[in-house]
Amino acid sequence: MIVTVTPNPALDITYTVPGFRLHTTHRVAEVAAQAGGKGINVARVLHALGRRTTAVLPLGGATGAAVEADLVRSGIPHLCVPIDGETRRTVAVADTTDTTMLNEAGPEVGAAEWAALRGRVRDLLPEARVLVVSGSLPRGLPEDACADLVRLARDRGVPVILDADGPVLRAGLAARPTVVKPNAAELLAATGIQDPAGAATALLAAGAEAVVASFGPDGLLAATPEGCLRARPPERVAGNTAGAGDAVVAALAAGLADGAAWSDMLGDAVALSAATVLAPRAGVFDPDAYRRFAAATTGATST
Amino acid sequence: MIVTVTPNPALDITYTVPGFRLHTTHRVAEVAAQAGGKGINVARVLHALGRRTTAVLPLGGATGAAVEADLVRSGIPHLCVPIDGETRRTVAVADTTDTTMLNEAGPEVGAAEWAALRGRVRDLLPEARVLVVSGSLPRGLPEDACADLVRLARDRGVPVILDADGPVLRAGLAARPTVVKPNAAELLAATGIQDPAGAATALLAAGAEAVVASFGPDGLLAATPEGCLRARPPERVAGNTAGAGDAVVAALAAGLADGAAWSDMLGDAVALSAATVLAPRAGVFDPDAYRRFAAATTGATST
Repeated sequence: MIVTVTPNPALDITYTVPGFRLHTTHRVAEVAAQAGGKGINVARVLHALGRRTTAVLPLGGATGAAVEADLVRSGIPHLCVPIDGETRRTVAVADTTDTTMLNEAGPEVGAAEWAALRGRVRDLLPEARVLVVSGSLPRGLPEDACADLVRLARDRGVPVILDADGPVLRAGLAARPTVVKPNAAELLAATGIQDPAGAATALLAAGAEAVVASFGPDGLLAATPEGCLRARPPERVAGNTAGAGDAVVAALAAGLADGAAWSDMLGDAVALSAATVLAPRAGVFDPDAYRRFAAATTGATST
Repeated sequence: MIVTVTPNPALDITYTVPGFRLHTTHRVAEVAAQAGGKGINVARVLHALGRRTTAVLPLGGATGAAVEADLVRSGIPHLCVPIDGETRRTVAVADTTDTTMLNEAGPEVGAAEWAALRGRVRDLLPEARVLVVSGSLPRGLPEDACADLVRLARDRGVPVILDADGPVLRAGLAARPTVVKPNAAELLAATGIQDPAGAATALLAAGAEAVVASFGPDGLLAATPEGCLRARPPERVAGNTAGAGDAVVAALAAGLADGAAWSDMLGDAVALSAATVLAPRAGVFDPDAYRRFAAATTGATST
């Protein structure tokens, strides 16, 4: 089983509003809402791949209830830790050009609530092949709260993928995660190094066992125990980039669970990520495109 | 007691986002959410005035639960009729210049669900001094669904204020509401007549016993059994215009319940409405400003 933790989940609301303009009243033609947050997106992809997964998350209030209702509806196994605060929303307004995002900060999570979540993760670890800790940290918690989860799993021999940025990423490195997955901006921010390969190598030195940096349409750069590898999508795709990075994490988690070779994992990750861009929502991929891309990909090449 | 019906209530979410721009990702600094919809706004104002009121509304899903939780928190007496559909949201994004509105259409309401709501209204009528029917009609209902509520109350001698537009207003006129309250655009759309006094008189001829048309900062124009009257706010105010029309309806409902004279009702309505513009949310008014404006208002003058 692959356990994902989403420290700050959200109800992701998407409005399709052709001709969206500022300072105007719009009737929203099309509304979609689903459970979101990076770890949930990862679990959604894994579930669609037929992988055993459990999404662990703190939830509170009416918005939390809506998140849980969507997890039930989507059939994604989940374990919710109740919190006093109200789970946040994100609102994405998609017009014909691009998307405007409004992200609520989300609730404070108290130390006792986080301890309860940590306990549920600990209880799942004996069954876990991989732990994924993904997304922002809620207010009220120390910067090393995710690092503590990484350490908990690593001490029990469970590989961990940490997808975080800023202070949470920096604190997490000390706990020696199996993989960290920054995007280009996060990689630069974490290291101050312009050269991606140099920056990735710096994160290895800081404690990560492997670094997989995502560069959108330019694919992935990985600093791994097998050396530096590069994987590019088999073709350029245009579409919804929300959740593309989470598809990368899902593919890596599946690969780690199977003990796959790095080259194969990275090829699979770019294929799955590109197939996610072709689907309208985070955590959803186009299965035909995934098969086509996976067949066409040449895996990763050494740099 | 004043009964308000909100056929298509909403969870009104307000985001304060200085520097809001298209096609950008924003962290929302300030989030507010409250039960909304015109009839609920009217009930909120009446409750703050210390008036006995009951808000009647259909509610469904997690968003419906959030609406009800806010009604409980706000202490507004309410009677919710459960529906299968999911209650809608509205999102208002306020930047330093103005507000961008995103209004979901809301759920379908079935005939049996509406019949249940009608039954609850009927049960409340013996206690009701005034019935307010306010806001848009949900999908799935015939255009005369609100007219039917108007007739139900009028047949029992209860005065009715109908605040609706388009086909719902047109159908409602035949049921002889005590007051209809179009704004300038609704008045023109309903009659095709450019001259406001002429348009208001046309709505009288179509069945309304009185017409109170609202013109924002220019105040109110009323065609009443006491003739045509005009009321202007005692001073120009700038602020949040959401709910300003609902404050007018609340003042008229309170005045009808008390048997007040038209001139006094209209003067009170402009004072309460202006005090609502000074408060940050629909259904909320600045009590000090209300007292000041009410003391300064000269009532309505004949035109």
